Amino acid sequence: MYKIIKKDGNAKRAEFSTVHGVIQTPVFMNVATVAAIKGGVSTYDLEGIDTQVVLSNTYHLHLRPGDDLIYRMGGLHKFMSCDKPILTDSGGFQVFSLAKTRRIKEEGVYFHSHIDGHKLFMGPEESMRIQSHLGSTIAMAFDECPSAKAEHEYVQMSVDRTTRWLERCKREMDRLNGLPYTVNPHQMLFGINQGAIFDDIRIEHAKRISEMDLDGYAVGGLAVGESHEEMYHVLETTVPYLPENKPTYLMGVGTPANILEAVDRGIDFFDCVYPSRNGRHGHLYTKRGHINILNARYEYDDSPIEEGCKCPACSRYSKAYIRHLLKAGEMLGMRLCVLHNLYFYNHLMVDIREAIEKGEYGAFKKQMLDSMQEFDGAEQKGKYNIAHNWRKG
Amino acid sequence: MYKIIKKDGNAKRAEFSTVHGVIQTPVFMNVATVAAIKGGVSTYDLEGIDTQVVLSNTYHLHLRPGDDLIYRMGGLHKFMSCDKPILTDSGGFQVFSLAKTRRIKEEGVYFHSHIDGHKLFMGPEESMRIQSHLGSTIAMAFDECPSAKAEHEYVQMSVDRTTRWLERCKREMDRLNGLPYTVNPHQMLFGINQGAIFDDIRIEHAKRISEMDLDGYAVGGLAVGESHEEMYHVLETTVPYLPENKPTYLMGVGTPANILEAVDRGIDFFDCVYPSRNGRHGHLYTKRGHINILNARYEYDDSPIEEGCKCPACSRYSKAYIRHLLKAGEMLGMRLCVLHNLYFYNHLMVDIREAIEKGEYGAFKKQMLDSMQEFDGAEQKGKYNIAHNWRKG
Repeated sequence: MYKIIKKDGNAKRAEFSTVHGVIQTPVFMNVATVAAIKGGVSTYDLEGIDTQVVLSNTYHLHLRPGDDLIYRMGGLHKFMSCDKPILTDSGGFQVFSLAKTRRIKEEGVYFHSHIDGHKLFMGPEESMRIQSHLGSTIAMAFDECPSAKAEHEYVQMSVDRTTRWLERCKREMDRLNGLPYTVNPHQMLFGINQGAIFDDIRIEHAKRISEMDLDGYAVGGLAVGESHEEMYHVLETTVPYLPENKPTYLMGVGTPANILEAVDRGIDFFDCVYPSRNGRHGHLYTKRGHINILNARYEYDDSPIEEGCKCPACSRYSKAYIRHLLKAGEMLGMRLCVLHNLYFYNHLMVDIREAIEKGEYGAFKKQMLDSMQEFDGAEQKGKYNIAHNWRKG
Repeated sequence: MYKIIKKDGNAKRAEFSTVHGVIQTPVFMNVATVAAIKGGVSTYDLEGIDTQVVLSNTYHLHLRPGDDLIYRMGGLHKFMSCDKPILTDSGGFQVFSLAKTRRIKEEGVYFHSHIDGHKLFMGPEESMRIQSHLGSTIAMAFDECPSAKAEHEYVQMSVDRTTRWLERCKREMDRLNGLPYTVNPHQMLFGINQGAIFDDIRIEHAKRISEMDLDGYAVGGLAVGESHEEMYHVLETTVPYLPENKPTYLMGVGTPANILEAVDRGIDFFDCVYPSRNGRHGHLYTKRGHINILNARYEYDDSPIEEGCKCPACSRYSKAYIRHLLKAGEMLGMRLCVLHNLYFYNHLMVDIREAIEKGEYGAFKKQMLDSMQEFDGAEQKGKYNIAHNWRKG
């Protein structure tokens, strides 16, 4: 299933075979939280931006439209008309970050919906059943993601419980894959390493979950408040204890620089909302750094966002046009910006794969980091004057 | 330029040759008010919905981003990356319907911007200069559109002034087309018949403007408060007085039924915001009448909006999925609905053209009117619970 084609230092160039196609890694997964990429991007737009894998969210889809509905519609691939591999997040992170008044017990988490406040419960079995209903290519284990600021004692207790939850996840996923009328009887399960920024807990947990024969291993609980240096340190400490013959996934990360550094520490899979979220605010990635297309300097700029870029936006439209669309509150402006940013991320991964194949990853990384200024990735909500008149006119 | 291929009663099947391609009429023009079709539809989506002509707005583009900017960017076709014929409305209707505190004088109209309130003036020459900057395929004359409830005396005075304005428009357009560095030196000019619901004024005005050798003739001032019967009566009364060797255009109309009736009264060109605006609210057109996709009956409906429809939405997605997207506030939901509705309108015109060619227009019209329930076309703003969370998540 997972075949390493080439190693360059700790950076890996690999292929991961799934029932929905072969994934070339390192790979960036394009986020479609509620079964659609934000910004009006359709699944038939995905070829044009070279998307390999789509990521959707268990928590969000469970609340709306409901995983039972998606099951009855034939599963997530059919529902959203997507023939590419889909990874579903387990809902764990959202239960802990979005849901209200949660109580964590051994059996799982009691919480209230962030949409309408109604009472819900999710544990390992529930998460697996929802993901089995969705029929994603890869399901993620249900875990607790402790705060980067949590105490050692709490993190140890939490991670021990997450390990017990993982065992329950695996048992339940095995059972579900064997049932009749399962959407995807070959659904894979990735475990998630936790431990905040504590080396001892991270390493011990990595060893324990490595003993379970899972399809892949994620490093979770990062990009939640710790520094970039702490994140890189966790990867350096933890990844060596994860199985070499399985893909690794750094959840929810991150900036182009984060990805370049994490690949160098052995990571295969990435996902992040930055390209789509920043795109909707007119923040665009280029190989020479980021630009804010709402800046007045682009008002009369008839060049594309990035010269030579083959994305659907740069192939046809100028900065002046896209800037006008955003200023006028036209959805098309957001859509073009999101398409450009996703294309940028997907092609950063193409370049990363090529550099590893050539055994030039170190030099490539340095050159990219030098040429790109660091994009801060911070959400810029409300900072810029983008009109909201979707239904007018 | 304008060649009638077939007549069937008063319905005409014709070809209209322009510098940007040949238009097959009767035709529905797809509205892109500020140089983009609302709902995130890009110019490269237009092939998939069989758009022939795009309509943009002089008033809106003059205010934002400014026609001078578009001129410097090489004109509207290059700016919005569109290789199809583009018709620009003159701005007259918007000055009278959107702008604040207007004063109408012989020279033109003094008004305040609806965006930021700053003082502006637009007369026939200004409208032609803006449209020349835009370089559209077809420019519309600058006219006053009197209220359907205006008195005979006011309408007569207004229409006389509109005639004088039309003479100034033609003179100015001829001059502009002869200038160096004109974006489109073959820019066409359509005159606009006015007269509210007064037969005598409509007929007299039609005769007067027909004497001027314009590229086409519009019937304006309809769909502004009069009944459908009054609209059809105006067409029956007026169109016979417009030149047979020129295309006719019914501005801002309308529902599928309106179009079917107007074609039967000799109209070639149509435009209307209904398909895109209704689409954004989940109101969808089908050959069996309209549906509101937010209706609970479609929650588990895995069939397309319309069986057999080849639009980008129906080719890939179910009602259940599109309904979910609208409920979740995903832009993609609006985009798919707008694409379906525009495809529906564009293909209604294909069917209309075929029926005229076969000499079966009367029977076709009756069959369509019987099978489609009348869609009321009223704006449904705020009536349905579509979430607004474009920038979240």
